Amino acid sequence: MERYRMVFSGSGGQGVITAAIILAEAAVLYENLMAVQSQSYGPEARGGATRSDVVISDTEVHYPKVIQPNLLVCLTQEAYNQFYPIIRPGGLLITDTRFVKTQKKVDALQKELPMYETTMEKIGKSIVFNICMLGAVIGLTDLVRSNSVIKVLQNRIPSGFLDINREALNLGIELGAKVKS
Amino acid sequence: MERYRMVFSGSGGQGVITAAIILAEAAVLYENLMAVQSQSYGPEARGGATRSDVVISDTEVHYPKVIQPNLLVCLTQEAYNQFYPIIRPGGLLITDTRFVKTQKKVDALQKELPMYETTMEKIGKSIVFNICMLGAVIGLTDLVRSNSVIKVLQNRIPSGFLDINREALNLGIELGAKVKS
Repeated sequence: MERYRMVFSGSGGQGVITAAIILAEAAVLYENLMAVQSQSYGPEARGGATRSDVVISDTEVHYPKVIQPNLLVCLTQEAYNQFYPIIRPGGLLITDTRFVKTQKKVDALQKELPMYETTMEKIGKSIVFNICMLGAVIGLTDLVRSNSVIKVLQNRIPSGFLDINREALNLGIELGAKVKS
Repeated sequence: MERYRMVFSGSGGQGVITAAIILAEAAVLYENLMAVQSQSYGPEARGGATRSDVVISDTEVHYPKVIQPNLLVCLTQEAYNQFYPIIRPGGLLITDTRFVKTQKKVDALQKELPMYETTMEKIGKSIVFNICMLGAVIGLTDLVRSNSVIKVLQNRIPSGFLDINREALNLGIELGAKVKS
């Protein structure tokens, strides 16, 4: 497989770190892959964009930081402004239509998806926005099976919340699969 | 300051990853420090011990993996058996008395603390065991102020759960401070 070097970025409360950890666990526990997931916080973390890195591969990952992601997700304008320059040429850039206006030219496949709007319209709870985003990533990349994510969610989430998480994941997968080229 | 290279280890449901993220955020957002927090998952993750790494420093952290922690926390026997050999000579090893029997000789300061028992006795909810552990780390090291952790918890946790988290943190701090040499 291609090695996936991903950066999920957004603001503090949007759950990008949680999404990254869920993806890493799904890959490792149920897909026989290896993964490293990390957060680097420097001075820019104070009042800036939150960033979470995940590397997934079928061989061992030695260097855990992502320098040039081949998949970059930006859920806020600030995250987009800060991180769009690091995308790997030919990579995939996913932004949320509600929160990000993409203006820059990047040498990447750009997908603007209404993840937040769809989450709010169909479920009405912003708390699963990050899971919808994770679904979109999976829908576009087929990196792991949705069922592997569901299994991780089952271990992590109180059973009363599982349904809206599953629904958010499926909404995201549909959004991603629909625009897959 | 001394650079802290920490490994928190235990089993999947014990919340060692969450504790590591909370500590990193407290250090960065409210203590003017820098931090890197990461999870490396390889084949040993399937059915083995969970491990979460945090490096905290007042200068930039370039290499995010922890090879030899100067602070190692083990919350299960399996985690202890797997990770005690990596502790840095002269480091600090914290284990939970309920879950770990320490038998090996290590060149480290060894603190066996009744974190789980105290949490269950005083609060009765195992879900805050990880926060009690985090308190013990702080009580022993004074790495960050408890108030910095409280601020992170306020941003992350539904307000109804804040009290038991604060209580668990304080219980841990007392346990740690009591055995500080």
